[in-house]
Amino acid sequence: MASLQFPDNSLLAKLAAILGPQGFITDPDLVTPWLTDWRRRYHGRTAAMLAPADRDQVAQIVSLAAEARVALVPQGGNTGTVAGATPPPDGSALLLSLRRMNRIRSISAEDNAVIAEAGVILSNLHDAAAAVGRRFPLSLAAKGSATIGGLVSTNAGGTQVLRFGPMRALVLGIEAVLPDGSLFEGLATLRKDNRGYDLRQLLTGAEGTLGVITAAALRLVPAVGARAVAWAGLPSPEAALKLLRRLEEATGEAVESFELVPANALALVLEKLPMLRSPLAAAAPWNVLIECVGSAGAPDPAIKLAELLGEQIDAGLVTNATLAASEAQAEALWALRESISEAEKADGPSLKHDISVPVSEMPSFVERERERVEARFPGSRIIAFGHLGDGNIHFNLLPPDDADRLAWIEQHGAAATAVIHDLVVASGGSLSAEHGIGQAKLAEFARLADPVRLSAIRAIKAALDPVGIMNPGKLVPLASKEKGQ
Amino acid sequence: MASLQFPDNSLLAKLAAILGPQGFITDPDLVTPWLTDWRRRYHGRTAAMLAPADRDQVAQIVSLAAEARVALVPQGGNTGTVAGATPPPDGSALLLSLRRMNRIRSISAEDNAVIAEAGVILSNLHDAAAAVGRRFPLSLAAKGSATIGGLVSTNAGGTQVLRFGPMRALVLGIEAVLPDGSLFEGLATLRKDNRGYDLRQLLTGAEGTLGVITAAALRLVPAVGARAVAWAGLPSPEAALKLLRRLEEATGEAVESFELVPANALALVLEKLPMLRSPLAAAAPWNVLIECVGSAGAPDPAIKLAELLGEQIDAGLVTNATLAASEAQAEALWALRESISEAEKADGPSLKHDISVPVSEMPSFVERERERVEARFPGSRIIAFGHLGDGNIHFNLLPPDDADRLAWIEQHGAAATAVIHDLVVASGGSLSAEHGIGQAKLAEFARLADPVRLSAIRAIKAALDPVGIMNPGKLVPLASKEKGQ
Repeated sequence: MASLQFPDNSLLAKLAAILGPQGFITDPDLVTPWLTDWRRRYHGRTAAMLAPADRDQVAQIVSLAAEARVALVPQGGNTGTVAGATPPPDGSALLLSLRRMNRIRSISAEDNAVIAEAGVILSNLHDAAAAVGRRFPLSLAAKGSATIGGLVSTNAGGTQVLRFGPMRALVLGIEAVLPDGSLFEGLATLRKDNRGYDLRQLLTGAEGTLGVITAAALRLVPAVGARAVAWAGLPSPEAALKLLRRLEEATGEAVESFELVPANALALVLEKLPMLRSPLAAAAPWNVLIECVGSAGAPDPAIKLAELLGEQIDAGLVTNATLAASEAQAEALWALRESISEAEKADGPSLKHDISVPVSEMPSFVERERERVEARFPGSRIIAFGHLGDGNIHFNLLPPDDADRLAWIEQHGAAATAVIHDLVVASGGSLSAEHGIGQAKLAEFARLADPVRLSAIRAIKAALDPVGIMNPGKLVPLASKEKGQ
Repeated sequence: MASLQFPDNSLLAKLAAILGPQGFITDPDLVTPWLTDWRRRYHGRTAAMLAPADRDQVAQIVSLAAEARVALVPQGGNTGTVAGATPPPDGSALLLSLRRMNRIRSISAEDNAVIAEAGVILSNLHDAAAAVGRRFPLSLAAKGSATIGGLVSTNAGGTQVLRFGPMRALVLGIEAVLPDGSLFEGLATLRKDNRGYDLRQLLTGAEGTLGVITAAALRLVPAVGARAVAWAGLPSPEAALKLLRRLEEATGEAVESFELVPANALALVLEKLPMLRSPLAAAAPWNVLIECVGSAGAPDPAIKLAELLGEQIDAGLVTNATLAASEAQAEALWALRESISEAEKADGPSLKHDISVPVSEMPSFVERERERVEARFPGSRIIAFGHLGDGNIHFNLLPPDDADRLAWIEQHGAAATAVIHDLVVASGGSLSAEHGIGQAKLAEFARLADPVRLSAIRAIKAALDPVGIMNPGKLVPLASKEKGQ
């Protein structure tokens, strides 16, 4: 935005004085790793990385930045896939790392709640919950690096959304510094609270454009008693969806994960990661990885799962299936699913899409649109895998084998993405199911979003951040009159 | 607000022409019943009740009202308890009834989703879900009159929040007419959608101050297979909370309702409603009504519930208990709980408070603060009952038996409410757990809310409704500089 300023020496000196050497970091060796996004497509610059120790320091930083009209880019574990936490390349913004704020302020089994600072790493939160006999039911591949602040700011999804919803459904309270430097204290662990507009929900998923989340109160659930993990081969995505609904009815909604894996994705994993083994004796056109979980004392879900899979093999819905007989076998099945991204990476550059459509549309979308896209871009291959029960598939395009992949993506990538997004919109879906908009999807969001939605988003942004210092260039498309400024 | 106008004849003529005789209603016999709130404390006036047939008519109404700067008060079943849908007494606003828009546009068992217009009555939605083998897991006493639009606009709670969350957790999409007359089409039944700020969540619970909800896409869950209902007597609220946590662990989160009923509330019900019978042979100081639900095919929760209650009687946590042996017995137990409000009403006027505190605080809050309030207002009695597992209790004060109750409330009501709300705030709680702010709680909300929260709420309101036509005087306290205008 035209009215923003570059940070000057006076501002930097004030920040250095407040934050001290641990919190005001300019050493390139320490800063550079955080200037490139997770997928290594965006590269930023910054005059300093600010790493506050507590919320008061965050409030001071934001107040000074607001006064100086300097942009701030909040960052957690830097594991986002849409470059929402990467500063712009012109060096105009300061990077605001929340990683030092990594305390768990309180945790209560009786309240089924935890209050964690923004910099707490997800797997540490899992451990803390387990230590009090509870669990935090959100997990994803980047759990060893991703932080609570980023997970809330991006409304993260993961593999348990089917049962527990995305991060939005687990947030009880939020503490945040708003763009004027004021502290919003909304951390209560209340289950019910109807006091005006839900600012917690507004800040969740706002990608740091409305303020800096400094801590969150999150919901816990009973610890896992028994879990049952199975791999099943199926003739079609339709069969997979039918199986899911039967399973939900039979197990009392104990189904936590139901991940669709097409034959080509499994083949790629087995080719690129030879230490992994095929789960079934005979390959099936489609596969699902199923996890059912019962809480301690509840019936073991393995019994129902085995029973149902047996029935459905007899009925022809499932071609073959295997139930993990041990924790090690369960982990081995999960490794197949979680290695798809790695196998794709090993295969070479690809074009990724994180899309959702209504669940009932997903089976036909996956088959029909896959063929349509592959026909439109001859030689390309679609790998469509992921969270079938959420209607959320990672619909990734691999360029033709004989092509220079980077050059192909350079030449056809934008067109292919536009074709896929148009198909999603035609199915009433979303071009961002769980990864957010950030900078990577901003142009496509602006192109495809309903003008009424865009106008409301811009009005809210302008109302809460009139100067526009909070993470500009992310999530909120400029109004057309501002374009090109 | 100073800039709003009274509706003039030109506007009324235009509206009458658009809406026709069925949609433009001025007959006092038809309008008057909707001008007084559910609890009969607020009385409004209006030049006309507008009853649009579809969303296009709603958009036309809002556009005309915006142009003429005339206030609109949206209303559904008029069952709210904070007079959020009652027009002001000066006749400045038009009443906008959504009750004619009562179509279920679509329902899908495969998607576990329904799209219902704002005027659909909750019990009709329950029936529609049952007809496709699913259920909509939100229920409350007013289900025969309350409408979806109102339930979403107030983020309604009810008796199943423990397992499924409040309305907010069940909303997948929203269609609404925004204050400028534009139509926000956010009805997709997507499970995951991260496209910018969550306007669905912002409109949920906004009490019609940011626009008019015309339809909602809502989540369904598997139909009930078996349900188990029990009544247990306990020595204390602490024992009740312990029982709840054990039950959740033992039944795999099948506990849907866990309602606390003190001895004085049960006694009042049995006194005022003599057709109801005492559930237990010996009265206990505290009671809980428990409902556990298993989906079809899942294990019958009655077995676990009976087992656990037996164990806990032996262990001394529970004094005595009864498990409903039939649907009729289950209904009879529920009737005891659901008749508390009616018994209070029969007893005479009382002072109601819908408060929440962290769940772990609730047992001590109920006992300690009850004594404190009764001591402060000698002769008064507190009846504290409700959703223990949600940390949400209806903390109602009955004036002294020898007093003229209305006069007592007139004289001491505001002071007593302030004392109770101060205690809630001191416990980190909310003065509105599930009923909203409306006009009834607006002054207390303004008195007790964090200024940062209020300022953000006002900024959002001004950004989306700059003229202030949408339900003025509800939910959003005027800024102090505007006070007295």
